[in-house]
Amino acid sequence: MTVLLSAAPLAILFLTFLLLRPQSIWPATIGSDPQVSLPARPGYPFKIALFADLHFGENAWTDWGPRQDVSSVNVMSTVLDDETPDFVVYLGDVITANNIPIANASLYWDQALSPTISRGIPFASVFGNHDDAPFEWPLEWFSAPGIPPVHCPVANSSFSDCSFRGIQRLQLMKNEIEQNAQSFSSKGPVDLWPSISNYVLPISPTNNSRSPVAYLYFLDSGGGSYPEVISNAQSEWFKTRSLEINPDSRVPELIFWHIPSKAYEKVAPSSGVPKPCVGSINKETVASQKAETGIMDILANRTSVKAVFVGHNHGLDWCCPDNKLWLCYARHTGYGGYGTWARGARIIEINQHPFSIKSWIRMENHDVHSQVDLSS
Amino acid sequence: MTVLLSAAPLAILFLTFLLLRPQSIWPATIGSDPQVSLPARPGYPFKIALFADLHFGENAWTDWGPRQDVSSVNVMSTVLDDETPDFVVYLGDVITANNIPIANASLYWDQALSPTISRGIPFASVFGNHDDAPFEWPLEWFSAPGIPPVHCPVANSSFSDCSFRGIQRLQLMKNEIEQNAQSFSSKGPVDLWPSISNYVLPISPTNNSRSPVAYLYFLDSGGGSYPEVISNAQSEWFKTRSLEINPDSRVPELIFWHIPSKAYEKVAPSSGVPKPCVGSINKETVASQKAETGIMDILANRTSVKAVFVGHNHGLDWCCPDNKLWLCYARHTGYGGYGTWARGARIIEINQHPFSIKSWIRMENHDVHSQVDLSS
Repeated sequence: MTVLLSAAPLAILFLTFLLLRPQSIWPATIGSDPQVSLPARPGYPFKIALFADLHFGENAWTDWGPRQDVSSVNVMSTVLDDETPDFVVYLGDVITANNIPIANASLYWDQALSPTISRGIPFASVFGNHDDAPFEWPLEWFSAPGIPPVHCPVANSSFSDCSFRGIQRLQLMKNEIEQNAQSFSSKGPVDLWPSISNYVLPISPTNNSRSPVAYLYFLDSGGGSYPEVISNAQSEWFKTRSLEINPDSRVPELIFWHIPSKAYEKVAPSSGVPKPCVGSINKETVASQKAETGIMDILANRTSVKAVFVGHNHGLDWCCPDNKLWLCYARHTGYGGYGTWARGARIIEINQHPFSIKSWIRMENHDVHSQVDLSS
Repeated sequence: MTVLLSAAPLAILFLTFLLLRPQSIWPATIGSDPQVSLPARPGYPFKIALFADLHFGENAWTDWGPRQDVSSVNVMSTVLDDETPDFVVYLGDVITANNIPIANASLYWDQALSPTISRGIPFASVFGNHDDAPFEWPLEWFSAPGIPPVHCPVANSSFSDCSFRGIQRLQLMKNEIEQNAQSFSSKGPVDLWPSISNYVLPISPTNNSRSPVAYLYFLDSGGGSYPEVISNAQSEWFKTRSLEINPDSRVPELIFWHIPSKAYEKVAPSSGVPKPCVGSINKETVASQKAETGIMDILANRTSVKAVFVGHNHGLDWCCPDNKLWLCYARHTGYGGYGTWARGARIIEINQHPFSIKSWIRMENHDVHSQVDLSS
């Protein structure tokens, strides 16, 4: 069958496609990678909200598991409505995969994204140690009365599809990207495998996409299915990539990953949060990566790198300087995971003229505290 | 094309099929389960060799990994040629799945079975804690010089098939059964999931399949992808099954699993192997299951249960009595896994008239030691 269309409807169709296709609304950086930029409104600050350690999907076979996920959605909704950020970073431990007895943990990942997606806010994610982990069977399930009703398998007398091994990083990331036009996440270079969430995003004014305001670097700090570490290969990738796209260190760079590096142990206050650190809770010791393979030396020697942001420790929310570099914790956002400290989210605000990077913590009860200038 | 065959060759073909089809040479127990019996030659002892903790597949990216697998094949070959057993039990930790960076660990499982298969000896297996476990990435692979060449993925720039999560129990067992007519293993009742290797095999004289000499029970003691435990459900299954097929406890029963129960801790000698225990090495403490959910009480109260056989502790090879029940270790058979104690295999010999269960350990250097009468 042949369909005849005049030129005008075809042009409208084509324009509609251009407008609606994923990421077509975000200006692309011309030339080599990175191709996709985050759009900054000229003359306005660019605001980022960090959602750390949401831990969706815990104990879905009990009442309290699903209830705390609802509470976590409320925290995120409050922060998004109070701050109206331009961008959200999911800073790892989005789900507690080792606590999810179903084959497809993306269900919970999607729940965690939903407050951001429903508000049309672009976002990106990095992996934490709980995102890609096999299910840990509770020992008590092996006593009487046995395994509670779960999604498989006894009812249909087949257990071949019941792996409960968690979704792997690669599949989680594919699902996020393919199902969400607002996702700016990327699955990173293949030679950095088994780490996945390694990529860079420029923030560029919509009227001048060739002059980024800042570069945001995301690194996978491992854990779950492999050791908690940023590899030598990842460090070398950062070194090469940053020199390639920002050779004169003119553009400021911010770094995001989940598990604190050993450098955090060095700057951690022994008690309270005395100056020059800024924060409100210092309730536990730093739980750092298993090894330091070079990334911190590279960051310390690069003048354009202003700050590193991590999650992982729910009882820490400080920023401390390490020479010219700020080492910052986010704030425990989710009701999932250990700890009962009040929930909130770290906010980062980047101003281009005059240049500044400010940060503060927005709490679930609307309070704001721990303002710090990371560009000083 | 039509092929015409006379009746005589067709009859020969049919008879050949009857003789060669899997398990057709083993008489089936008539009536309800268990359908398959191990054939005992009337008037001869029935001899079982236990191959414990072979740990195939360790560090395949080095020289010493494959070399020790060759050594393990040599141990098994020596034992099989010296003892010519009627049956072999692979008593768990056949592979070290957490050390195998390939998707299909059945390759190494098959290597471990090969000395038995090549001699045409029937066998069965139970799972150990190392058989179904995800790959544990060595931390040093994340420093320079990075990940050694493995079976995937960088060469073809695709890592979607590189899960390295180990084969699950179910798939391992399916592979073993489907690929080996000599395998008497079974994947067990679906309602005992996630444990898999739970089944019973009668040993029956070929001239009287209705009068078993003994029942061999195999239980999955967990570990790897779920806790190291024999569940309440497994205990109840044993209780029900044994009452059903051996209601008057007339037929002796032997029990095989991998990880010692807590009862082993109670009978373990503090040093050496003093009587009434029998054995040659007592070099470490018992590494027992994480909980005791009832199986030991059931076994202790059943007069037909004569002995339990486990592996797991490479430095222990004793049998100790626990009231009327013998708790026995096998002997570390493989060059894989920890420990450098000389390798060997526990042998069990069952005589019907007069009834006896004898056991000893056959070493790689042909020595025999630790003879014990388990029917006394």
